[in-house]
Amino acid sequence: MKINGKPYRSIWAVKNNSAVEIIDQRKLPHVFEVVRLEQLEDAATAIRDMYVRGAPLIGATAAYGICLALKKDPSDTSLEQAIKLLADTRPTAINLRWALSQMQKAVISLPEPRRVEMAFARAAQICDEDVVLCRSMGRNGFELIERLWKQHNRAINILTHCNAGWLATVDWGTALAPIYMAHDAGIPVHVWVDETRPRNQGAHLTAWELGQHGVPHSVIVDNAGGHLMQHGQVDICFVGTDRTTASGDVCNKIGTYLKALAAEDNKVPFYVCAPSPSIDWAIHNGLEDIPIEQRNGNEVHTLSGMDEKGRVTVVKITPERSSVSNYAFDVTPARLVTGLVTERGVCDASRAGLEALFPEKYEA
Amino acid sequence: MKINGKPYRSIWAVKNNSAVEIIDQRKLPHVFEVVRLEQLEDAATAIRDMYVRGAPLIGATAAYGICLALKKDPSDTSLEQAIKLLADTRPTAINLRWALSQMQKAVISLPEPRRVEMAFARAAQICDEDVVLCRSMGRNGFELIERLWKQHNRAINILTHCNAGWLATVDWGTALAPIYMAHDAGIPVHVWVDETRPRNQGAHLTAWELGQHGVPHSVIVDNAGGHLMQHGQVDICFVGTDRTTASGDVCNKIGTYLKALAAEDNKVPFYVCAPSPSIDWAIHNGLEDIPIEQRNGNEVHTLSGMDEKGRVTVVKITPERSSVSNYAFDVTPARLVTGLVTERGVCDASRAGLEALFPEKYEA
Repeated sequence: MKINGKPYRSIWAVKNNSAVEIIDQRKLPHVFEVVRLEQLEDAATAIRDMYVRGAPLIGATAAYGICLALKKDPSDTSLEQAIKLLADTRPTAINLRWALSQMQKAVISLPEPRRVEMAFARAAQICDEDVVLCRSMGRNGFELIERLWKQHNRAINILTHCNAGWLATVDWGTALAPIYMAHDAGIPVHVWVDETRPRNQGAHLTAWELGQHGVPHSVIVDNAGGHLMQHGQVDICFVGTDRTTASGDVCNKIGTYLKALAAEDNKVPFYVCAPSPSIDWAIHNGLEDIPIEQRNGNEVHTLSGMDEKGRVTVVKITPERSSVSNYAFDVTPARLVTGLVTERGVCDASRAGLEALFPEKYEA
Repeated sequence: MKINGKPYRSIWAVKNNSAVEIIDQRKLPHVFEVVRLEQLEDAATAIRDMYVRGAPLIGATAAYGICLALKKDPSDTSLEQAIKLLADTRPTAINLRWALSQMQKAVISLPEPRRVEMAFARAAQICDEDVVLCRSMGRNGFELIERLWKQHNRAINILTHCNAGWLATVDWGTALAPIYMAHDAGIPVHVWVDETRPRNQGAHLTAWELGQHGVPHSVIVDNAGGHLMQHGQVDICFVGTDRTTASGDVCNKIGTYLKALAAEDNKVPFYVCAPSPSIDWAIHNGLEDIPIEQRNGNEVHTLSGMDEKGRVTVVKITPERSSVSNYAFDVTPARLVTGLVTERGVCDASRAGLEALFPEKYEA
């Protein structure tokens, strides 16, 4: 998608694969800064400290992390250590594990001198595939918006949580892809952007993305969505997913569950945009089987923004001696999800729904 | 309640009723500052700009606002203008209108020279009555916590939203009164404090109050409560109310509805602490009949906290050109409320429940 009119992806290799570049998402929307990753550790830090985030982009960054590790040392030991290091950076998103296993498969049987080139080729392919997946998924979600527009013949109000835009993927995004496509097709849309504490990816990233692309939107606090739904101000919800079970339970940014409850209570359709690499075919109970990351309490104690003088500043909002708790994700049970939007179509959030679209995944 | 060991109320008259003092709650928890109100306009500003907030304290401040107006000019016109000015400061809390009508009744039939003294006496009485109401209500809520403690024989986890503590009333608080009483009685409690964006009254005020009184607590983002309830980490919820209908619908700080939905979904008891002045006996449909205040968008665009150098700083968190929307309250339908805790006992959130405790209100 575009930044100031110039097309970008969220990650790309540079200088004949000597390094990889990303956008430092911690500094948006106030500062736009590209960061170069030159070694495995840079990639691990970028994921762990959230220069990059979003399940698909975490996967892509991990794939390039393997490339950087093999560039330094193409041995089996190096590969194994890199996989372990990267797998431990974030526990919840399934794409990370998926991408690492793809990378391992691509290089493990090759002689060492041929591994680096193949790794970069496979990482680039993972990125390209992600773009294709998001585009296909976006088209399927687009049809849901188009249908509402034909029905209401007015701007369609869409609520989203966190950032599942192109910054969370390689391009297009998951939850935002249908919205970009509707906007580009001339369908009037307006997006309610949950600010998404504690890290404010909604206020910082989603609002910035949508603004850069010219999509009308309003930032709201995470408390507001229920009220808007009660008053008919939300036509449809689109959110992303960090891991979806084979039974349709959805693990996504903390607070998603609360919005899904409000959507159900007000009969607002609630769709989860889930390209297949976000689906964990091995598990069936989201509440029991998905590890929920607990992040540093400072994310709750503090918040970053731009002060009066234009400096990015961290401020403390809690009293000196108060404790905090910081779970990063929650699980929305399948019963609250109207449908899963995948690259193969929209299906019920259920084993039957997923199996109809992805029969090969259930054969074993 | 106590601040650094010294007992305080949230509002008090000084110097033979020549002025009124309040705590500037906009600066907590970082700075503790007492502000003097000397004229009607000071009281109106204190309510409008939220030096004070919380339905009962808004009522008490408005009562003293009338005193200050009459001190300058005890005429009917002055009284009328003061009532109009104060009534327009905040639209949602019913206590404001209730207190103004009490003040009018107290002085309207008196000759002008006797009005000021009577006004101060009635305002003081409104404050004392509020303390008595909160204490009685607190005892009724205390029994709910005591019962859970006897049942589980471990620390009881309580979730609260916004600030309905002693800073929101004159003393004790509404939602926090049962908690203070349980803590004081030696029952181990732990409070999950929703930070409560946009103004963060949870992180700023509730956490500070509880900390000053020594009650164990953890601040969480507004997104987290559902996850905690899914995992059995919340035993009971207590929230306050800005206006409760005669049918038991509850209007409270934006986001309360989302927590009530999660409580219902996870069978967590959800109680609203509603002393009778918070009940609007004239209305029966919360979603249709309660005006919801829309506040300045800057509350969403920005956030205040303490920077590294200990200065209270406002930071901007949204991109330059993003719009925002800022509804201050939402309505939780009676069906989601386990019970209303009043000064006369705990009842169903329904006309029948309220009528059993307050039959005189339904006679007309």
